[in-house]
Amino acid sequence: MIFSECLFSENNSDGTYNPIFDEDLSWDDATWILTSSFIILTMQTGFGLLESGCVSLKNEVNIMMKNVVDIVFGGLTYWLFGFGLSFGKDYSNPFIAFGWFALDANIQVMGPIFSTFLFQLSFATTATTIVSGAMAERCNFRAYCLFSLVNTVVYCIPAGWIWGSHGFLKHLGAIDIGGSGAVHLIGGSSALVAAWMLGPRLGRYENGTDPLPMGSPTNALLGLFMLWWGWLAFSSGSVFGVSGHKWKYSARASVTTINASFGGGFMGLVYSYVRTKGKFDILDLISGVLGSLVSVTGGCALFKPWEAVVIGFIGGAFACFGIPFFDWLRIDDPVGAISVHGLAAFWGVLAIGLFADGENLLNLTKGNSGLFKGGGFYLLGVQFLAAICFATWSITVTFCLLWSINKFIPIRMEAHEELLGADLVEHGIRRPGVGVSRALSALGSHPNVDLEAANSIGINPGHQIALQKYINERNLKKDTNGHANQDLPPTGPTATGPSQAWFY
Amino acid sequence: MIFSECLFSENNSDGTYNPIFDEDLSWDDATWILTSSFIILTMQTGFGLLESGCVSLKNEVNIMMKNVVDIVFGGLTYWLFGFGLSFGKDYSNPFIAFGWFALDANIQVMGPIFSTFLFQLSFATTATTIVSGAMAERCNFRAYCLFSLVNTVVYCIPAGWIWGSHGFLKHLGAIDIGGSGAVHLIGGSSALVAAWMLGPRLGRYENGTDPLPMGSPTNALLGLFMLWWGWLAFSSGSVFGVSGHKWKYSARASVTTINASFGGGFMGLVYSYVRTKGKFDILDLISGVLGSLVSVTGGCALFKPWEAVVIGFIGGAFACFGIPFFDWLRIDDPVGAISVHGLAAFWGVLAIGLFADGENLLNLTKGNSGLFKGGGFYLLGVQFLAAICFATWSITVTFCLLWSINKFIPIRMEAHEELLGADLVEHGIRRPGVGVSRALSALGSHPNVDLEAANSIGINPGHQIALQKYINERNLKKDTNGHANQDLPPTGPTATGPSQAWFY
Amino acid sequence: MIFSECLFSENNSDGTYNPIFDEDLSWDDATWILTSSFIILTMQTGFGLLESGCVSLKNEVNIMMKNVVDIVFGGLTYWLFGFGLSFGKDYSNPFIAFGWFALDANIQVMGPIFSTFLFQLSFATTATTIVSGAMAERCNFRAYCLFSLVNTVVYCIPAGWIWGSHGFLKHLGAIDIGGSGAVHLIGGSSALVAAWMLGPRLGRYENGTDPLPMGSPTNALLGLFMLWWGWLAFSSGSVFGVSGHKWKYSARASVTTINASFGGGFMGLVYSYVRTKGKFDILDLISGVLGSLVSVTGGCALFKPWEAVVIGFIGGAFACFGIPFFDWLRIDDPVGAISVHGLAAFWGVLAIGLFADGENLLNLTKGNSGLFKGGGFYLLGVQFLAAICFATWSITVTFCLLWSINKFIPIRMEAHEELLGADLVEHGIRRPGVGVSRALSALGSHPNVDLEAANSIGINPGHQIALQKYINERNLKKDTNGHANQDLPPTGPTATGPSQAWFY
Repeated sequence: MIFSECLFSENNSDGTYNPIFDEDLSWDDATWILTSSFIILTMQTGFGLLESGCVSLKNEVNIMMKNVVDIVFGGLTYWLFGFGLSFGKDYSNPFIAFGWFALDANIQVMGPIFSTFLFQLSFATTATTIVSGAMAERCNFRAYCLFSLVNTVVYCIPAGWIWGSHGFLKHLGAIDIGGSGAVHLIGGSSALVAAWMLGPRLGRYENGTDPLPMGSPTNALLGLFMLWWGWLAFSSGSVFGVSGHKWKYSARASVTTINASFGGGFMGLVYSYVRTKGKFDILDLISGVLGSLVSVTGGCALFKPWEAVVIGFIGGAFACFGIPFFDWLRIDDPVGAISVHGLAAFWGVLAIGLFADGENLLNLTKGNSGLFKGGGFYLLGVQFLAAICFATWSITVTFCLLWSINKFIPIRMEAHEELLGADLVEHGIRRPGVGVSRALSALGSHPNVDLEAANSIGINPGHQIALQKYINERNLKKDTNGHANQDLPPTGPTATGPSQAWFY
Repeated sequence: MIFSECLFSENNSDGTYNPIFDEDLSWDDATWILTSSFIILTMQTGFGLLESGCVSLKNEVNIMMKNVVDIVFGGLTYWLFGFGLSFGKDYSNPFIAFGWFALDANIQVMGPIFSTFLFQLSFATTATTIVSGAMAERCNFRAYCLFSLVNTVVYCIPAGWIWGSHGFLKHLGAIDIGGSGAVHLIGGSSALVAAWMLGPRLGRYENGTDPLPMGSPTNALLGLFMLWWGWLAFSSGSVFGVSGHKWKYSARASVTTINASFGGGFMGLVYSYVRTKGKFDILDLISGVLGSLVSVTGGCALFKPWEAVVIGFIGGAFACFGIPFFDWLRIDDPVGAISVHGLAAFWGVLAIGLFADGENLLNLTKGNSGLFKGGGFYLLGVQFLAAICFATWSITVTFCLLWSINKFIPIRMEAHEELLGADLVEHGIRRPGVGVSRALSALGSHPNVDLEAANSIGINPGHQIALQKYINERNLKKDTNGHANQDLPPTGPTATGPSQAWFY
Repeated sequence: MIFSECLFSENNSDGTYNPIFDEDLSWDDATWILTSSFIILTMQTGFGLLESGCVSLKNEVNIMMKNVVDIVFGGLTYWLFGFGLSFGKDYSNPFIAFGWFALDANIQVMGPIFSTFLFQLSFATTATTIVSGAMAERCNFRAYCLFSLVNTVVYCIPAGWIWGSHGFLKHLGAIDIGGSGAVHLIGGSSALVAAWMLGPRLGRYENGTDPLPMGSPTNALLGLFMLWWGWLAFSSGSVFGVSGHKWKYSARASVTTINASFGGGFMGLVYSYVRTKGKFDILDLISGVLGSLVSVTGGCALFKPWEAVVIGFIGGAFACFGIPFFDWLRIDDPVGAISVHGLAAFWGVLAIGLFADGENLLNLTKGNSGLFKGGGFYLLGVQFLAAICFATWSITVTFCLLWSINKFIPIRMEAHEELLGADLVEHGIRRPGVGVSRALSALGSHPNVDLEAANSIGINPGHQIALQKYINERNLKKDTNGHANQDLPPTGPTATGPSQAWFY
């Protein structure tokens, strides 16, 4: 995100930052930023669909609920303190900022502040949502809610390093326009820690490390589509405006983003064809495309279109090959979040150090160029440092948070809850035909399992009662009259009481 | 919607209105308005998903079809007379406008007129769609089609009261930027009348007032997501532009809208946790979030971010507590539309009278301030009057319309149709495993039930024929040859006729 | 698309074209074009949902995968050579352009080039996606991938005829703003050839020509919704900007597009009511709405709103009546793509020659008017010529491509693969309850059918193992102790190994 150039000018010689809002952000820019934010938020729908499509059907609703909670709690804390720890103006040192807690702004300056906040918020919720997939099917819902509340801190502080005008990575010249590092590497590293701490799902590796069957491949592909189109706004919105020369880079960022996905999708198809000996696996293709998008978004405005294809191809490879690697380590990541967001993002951050061109109209790179553009190893080194810092921070802080939460609420579901599925246990939703009945009959005497509340979804139980009533009445008449009476059940009044419908 | 300020200037001393199009709406504003309209229309997808996810599976398609009809018929009549009754310029008094029927515009002035029409259209279809949820699972499809045709009149006249330059509520200073009152309170009040007139679903309250199981909780949550993101455009698009100071209020409206949802979502989680003793119910969370969005949208550009959290929290409470209240009254609202749109909107209209700040750059409040901002009771009183007018109008007119329609086509489905489900009865769609077969065997001799047309969805019946043919041939060969012949069935030609495929 | 007026000025007297980028496209235009592109790409999600909702469930995932491949391969080739064959500047004659292969642009001129490319790309992928529906349920996946790679050539050359500054249709004055001809007529004609060459699905016409039951009507209606809203950007984005007078035509295009859908939806409802004797068929309504959108988009910025309703009504009729017509011809088109995109588009291209008004602010028609606006038969004749050229080209080239591909990889699946369903055969996905098991037991001994890889989706097989283990242990204890032991299975460690979860 080309953040501080747009919103804040470092125009004081004493080193303090002076926001100049009206000059820096026009309403054309705000239109772009706000519209991008609206589109980026649709990626939450995409994440929800992808994750719920990947898990078994008895956990499908639970993972969607976790995505909702991510926005409610993650958004609340981002407003309360996250934005302030990234970009606050009361105090800052190269590692952290303060101020703007429970963000408000007076009407003169609220335009750029609120536009920026909404855009940043859409990034923050993305970062926290990434983790939910890696924790799927075995994480306690209440523990997850607590994690959503505090997870903001994992994202917001390193976001300040690279995008805040105080950040040490920014001062060193590190570049991360669309958040390969600050969003995806951080989210993917969190996912790694969370998946490792939770341990694999029950019986996950009993029959080897082959991927488990998906719950709903169609939904997973729908989620891919929604993430794909949302990503165009994610990348091109990160140029943070259209005025002046910015629109040219927004346009380029769109093209490199979609081009990268061609490379990643091609990678996914080839990988799957070889791995499965002639079949095309859904998750391989999804991982290839998403891995490419993750890897290109950091330098989206800086790459040439053909470079984007190559970067996306390699990013897709990281995502595809990473999944069996982590399964080999027995780190169970139901949606491949660690590989898709973590590994591909690592590559994406480095790729900027290889391919970035120092000559550009917005001074995006502070004059630095990547290794392949004659800039030597400086930018590559800085990018490597940034990647290491992001991953280390995220791993450390996520571990501390989950370790602490686990003291209060065990983050892992109990075994019987896991076997019954989180939809039943946490939300009282019972879905027929997904193995829950068998688990219930084996585990049913457990006091925590409330069978009363667990109506099967999809069927109207009131109708069953009404139908039975009609059958009983008919049989009664049949007995009395000696012949079958096939009259229909009386409409409304008899069944529901005359006072409840106005026209009877 | 800051409508008349943008589109029409009251520049004639004799009180007539003189549209000055080119000065008032720039192409930047049009970009914002049109893009917002496109996004707002995606909320129709959200409504469809939410409603079809809430009803039993045998009515899932029917409720989607009703949403389609809402747009086709509701849109047609809004173009024919709805827009004209809201904003027409041929004649107007404080209660109604005339003109612009079957809207057209010459090429010089068509820019602002068509932009405004599309935006208003997206609001109008939203208002009419709200009702469909409350009528789910028991409303005759043909009667609903008729209702869609005339329902426009319920919305368009009060929209003129508050947004038309002729409107008496506008003259009094009532405020409703994003339509808490004109869209949601009107839609929710219609829903109340419709649900009451239809009576509860068969057997709905036989086992108490607990909510029935949903048909597809995942789809319902997807619908929530789509409504959520669409709402950002709904609120911020209502500022009706970005030029001048407008973009600052668009940005603020986005932030207050998303912030309110944090409050409402939190409310929904807490409410559900207490009500269900430790579980998290899907519909409670959905209602909390949507209730908060409904309540904040009316004053979206006027609130501070923290006020939005509070307003959303209270709006979510109205939605959550309203649902059991209406069930206690035996008013059966399958998706909670009355509480989510009606009650939360009532609170939202009043909240403007409490929290609105008179000092702003667009003169949004005509200098009035809410009670908590030192403006006394005037604005609150006007807002209360507006809410009463909206609810009274909507209840009265909806009753008259449904009462009249019921004379021609009974609005309630017959009991046997209801038990078989609208998907089968109205659309010839039969879904296995949702209780239809049992109902068919009990009610099947009824002349209106056409079993012939009712193929089970999902399965290709031609394949069953082809497969049976192959099995027969194989058995025949087995008999003749004395051994099993496991050859595959011949490709294409034999099965489909040689003339039908070019390459055989 | 008002392409060459915006991007290129024909300012040299010698007839060569001189791109003047900075003057012609402002950042306001780019915002409009890019945002439209993002929204148009969501139509891919709509196509995917519609197609997967129409086919039987055992092919649902496969058709989504084909949509993904359309973007990956179709996009890649459009970047490599498609855009260049449409608009390249190295060499051109009235039939074809050259240049801009593997598109790149320097930073000074990249703004308009990249914006235009992304917009065009969204059109190109739409055109290629149309075909996938007509080929559903029986086309070999690998052959389809190959077809996706080369299908670009079917679209890109005629797109140059009408939109490139070199194009002979453009020189004659033919008009096709939103691509009724260049996108939909071409896609629909391809679909005709492809469906005819593949032959009908096995057993398709054994029981007459009635439509087969859909796989998921709800998904199909969701797809309709997403296409509907996306179409507003498809049409109004085709005005290619908002600056100057363009925004007025963008606004008009939005209104005519949505108005046409009112006419088409009404047509669909009436048609269905008559055809099915009182029912409302899902596919009839979908076809009516989509047919109207296809027919209006070509002249979207030129029609009056009431004309759009009429044009949409007739377009919907072409779509609705076309479907049984092609079934009567035994051309099996599972989603009705030939009628919806082909026939309705033919009407749409002609409608411009009837209704276009020569007087407009952007010189969209080069002064020509349609027959009904006093322009005589010239424009109508040119439009007819354009339609014939598009259809002839598309039919011829698609036939040659598929004929060639069929030499390498048979485009039709083998009969046993078709009966087992593409999801199982191509992607190793087995869905319970859709007739696959019966087909497997009849055809199972075939060497290509890999039962090992075919886990049923939705159920976690690891959980089955863990559950069985617990039951076994319990039974063992019961035997030893002489009484039932209902302890829960041990959490995590025992089941998954102590080293795999950090906190055990």
